Amino acid sequence: MDFKFDDTIYAPATSVGAGAISIIRVSGPQAISICSGLVKLSHGTLSDAAGYTLHYGSIFAGDGQVLDDVVVSVFRAPRSYTGEDSIEISCHASSYIVSSIMQLLAEAGARAAEPGEFTRRAFVNGKMDLAQAEAVADVISSSSAASHRVAFNQLRGGFSSELQAMRGNLLDITSLMELELDFSEEDVEFADRTNLIALVDSSLAQINKLASSFRLGNAIKNGVPVAIVGAANAGKSTLLNALLSEERAIVTDIPGTTRDTVEETYVLDGILFRFIDTAGIRETSETVEKIGIDRSFAAAERADVVILMVDSTSSIEAVKESVSALSSHLDPASQSVIIAANKSDIADSPAGLDALLPGAQILSISARSGEGLDALRAALVSSQSSRLSDAGETLVSNARHYNSLCAASRALSLVRGGLLSGAATDLVAQDLREALYHLGTITGEISTDEVLGNIFKKFCIGK
Amino acid sequence: MDFKFDDTIYAPATSVGAGAISIIRVSGPQAISICSGLVKLSHGTLSDAAGYTLHYGSIFAGDGQVLDDVVVSVFRAPRSYTGEDSIEISCHASSYIVSSIMQLLAEAGARAAEPGEFTRRAFVNGKMDLAQAEAVADVISSSSAASHRVAFNQLRGGFSSELQAMRGNLLDITSLMELELDFSEEDVEFADRTNLIALVDSSLAQINKLASSFRLGNAIKNGVPVAIVGAANAGKSTLLNALLSEERAIVTDIPGTTRDTVEETYVLDGILFRFIDTAGIRETSETVEKIGIDRSFAAAERADVVILMVDSTSSIEAVKESVSALSSHLDPASQSVIIAANKSDIADSPAGLDALLPGAQILSISARSGEGLDALRAALVSSQSSRLSDAGETLVSNARHYNSLCAASRALSLVRGGLLSGAATDLVAQDLREALYHLGTITGEISTDEVLGNIFKKFCIGK
Repeated sequence: MDFKFDDTIYAPATSVGAGAISIIRVSGPQAISICSGLVKLSHGTLSDAAGYTLHYGSIFAGDGQVLDDVVVSVFRAPRSYTGEDSIEISCHASSYIVSSIMQLLAEAGARAAEPGEFTRRAFVNGKMDLAQAEAVADVISSSSAASHRVAFNQLRGGFSSELQAMRGNLLDITSLMELELDFSEEDVEFADRTNLIALVDSSLAQINKLASSFRLGNAIKNGVPVAIVGAANAGKSTLLNALLSEERAIVTDIPGTTRDTVEETYVLDGILFRFIDTAGIRETSETVEKIGIDRSFAAAERADVVILMVDSTSSIEAVKESVSALSSHLDPASQSVIIAANKSDIADSPAGLDALLPGAQILSISARSGEGLDALRAALVSSQSSRLSDAGETLVSNARHYNSLCAASRALSLVRGGLLSGAATDLVAQDLREALYHLGTITGEISTDEVLGNIFKKFCIGK
Repeated sequence: MDFKFDDTIYAPATSVGAGAISIIRVSGPQAISICSGLVKLSHGTLSDAAGYTLHYGSIFAGDGQVLDDVVVSVFRAPRSYTGEDSIEISCHASSYIVSSIMQLLAEAGARAAEPGEFTRRAFVNGKMDLAQAEAVADVISSSSAASHRVAFNQLRGGFSSELQAMRGNLLDITSLMELELDFSEEDVEFADRTNLIALVDSSLAQINKLASSFRLGNAIKNGVPVAIVGAANAGKSTLLNALLSEERAIVTDIPGTTRDTVEETYVLDGILFRFIDTAGIRETSETVEKIGIDRSFAAAERADVVILMVDSTSSIEAVKESVSALSSHLDPASQSVIIAANKSDIADSPAGLDALLPGAQILSISARSGEGLDALRAALVSSQSSRLSDAGETLVSNARHYNSLCAASRALSLVRGGLLSGAATDLVAQDLREALYHLGTITGEISTDEVLGNIFKKFCIGK
């Protein structure tokens, strides 16, 4: 067996805490021989065990006493997660036992794995490409159906195969151009420029579509940002609490980057939303409050969904005045804007709301009584499920991939311009190689130790 | 296959949190058929899979999309933890995936397991006796080498086999006595009373030895209680902090039963110690302080080790006076008492300390500079390791077992008295059956649903 790594690593693969079973993962050329020395099986030895088999046995501590009775899983290269010989030791979930077993493994010559090292080995051994490896961490941290689907599609190679196809096209063009360069003395054009431009155009469209999916992909992964804005005392915080109360069990606090912004996430119908409660908008000369209001404007601009809270007991003139400063920060064309006419339990919505922000949806609600909240939740979900169904199968959710796609897009635009203007073949070919380079960094055909180090250090131990 | 339970249960067997892998455990007569319907293997089907084999496959969600790629372990009755057909699904450690898989299992007809239900089934199916089943929870919660050894010895049946042997002896005596009862008209004595008394005596000695091991067993399991007592300002809290600082990583706070007592545990050389910082002793007429001092006395009485802090800058007369109230609460014969003459960095120990408490060990330390603390730690460890080596292989660490042993001991003492006084055979036989009953409750030969319920409800889910 030809191994790319000559050392054997171990790490706990399950989190320490209340549980029945803990798993310790061992991978590398000595995985089986090291564990064979530690675990005395009730039948046979691990060295003779076939892959994909389980074995019951006992681990002995240094003093000859039995440390634990364990079940051992055997995986033989290349049919394992890392592609190497691997062992998983399933022991009682005691921190004492886990640390004792790890100490025995260290004494037997294995070393503690770094964060993400198992997945890094899987990448280096060709079990998955870099985009898939990155998806492993995303799959684990997914907390909603939608974010799970995005991550799992990437893990299964959906994104990679789209990239691969695109890269194939560009490689074809590159070959043609390089053939021309070889015969450059003779001033021939092997490649029909019109065809080449069409090919570049279609690749460019594909790359741009993927790059533009990042806003949605990122929202699905980290929570769709929903800004709750409006005049002071319109009931914004009451609405936030009312929306969260039914799902309080899975509410999490995200410490805001600014002290004055409260963010809370929750999952609604499989989609993670990130609510941002903002300072109320009103005319003020007070410096600190002005800063808070500027932040409200910024939150509204960045949000994918804006809930504009209106106090139904106010006159339409008062409402108009209170939102006038805000409306220039909203864009019903690219955002979902919902005007929530609050306090429906004590007043009807003021007439003329529909002229307030053309394109906005209007809902009559009572944050206090709960009236209309189901309709509001449904509007939130539908705003995103329609975005999801408009988007393709693949959503880019990783900032590194997004940056590489943007760089590839820029290079390919230069290629297009060069072809149109009849630029020298060698200049065009250089831009093409630049585009290929950036696409290659996504799947890891091109990678450096530094890039890999940055990616895998964010993984947990044992993955 | 003949199953004692007709339903199939599932539960996560690993704790939810940061980790690479999560395990979901399924057990019961439909375990394999239910999982066979959920997991599409890359080769073959689970229904055909042999026990102790691993299988790679995919789990599909209700909408037909792949939920996760998993590795499935197959265990066939009776070669499994529960003794039933069992499956362990190893999936990515995402709370979304784990909860989705459990939902699919529920929809397919399995039900969520109660705490400890897997181990309860293992007991009912004869895979382990009750004392072993209880040891499972102790093994998992063990945090030191010594407590692990006590629990693991019990899990492996060391305690059970001692009990079994004892019970066998008593059953022999019972049979002989019952034979006499059958022939009671004829007034014969089949059993030689002298031999019987010798048998009862040896059983009684064994039971009493086990029962008396509970104090040490309990200390090893929950932490050896070390009371730090002494005059106010002798440096007790400084000592506590100094002792803990080197091991702060594994310090845990145990909320005291009384507000005024601070308890902290840490592991020293494989033994868990539980330090109790007490109120300083001094003459006072203040009611609240008096209560605090009474509690210090009580803590000193209950402790296995007492560190009596003495201020070396005081005169021997002042020291004597300050400990006079305390000394009646100490017993150097049954406790380890260490006189720590503190502040060695600024004063020598007062002459005459050795006459203070005959049998106590005297150490000169400085809680502030750290001088002498290694010797103090060594004294703590050695006080317990000598207890451990004096004790037998088996330590009773479970209060339920201790209570049953005490009840068996009382009944057996009555047997002994009856035999000595020539009491009627049927009365003696009744006491014998009582002793057998109590021993039988330990290993679960005799058990009720209520007893089992109380035992297993303290287990974690998935065990």
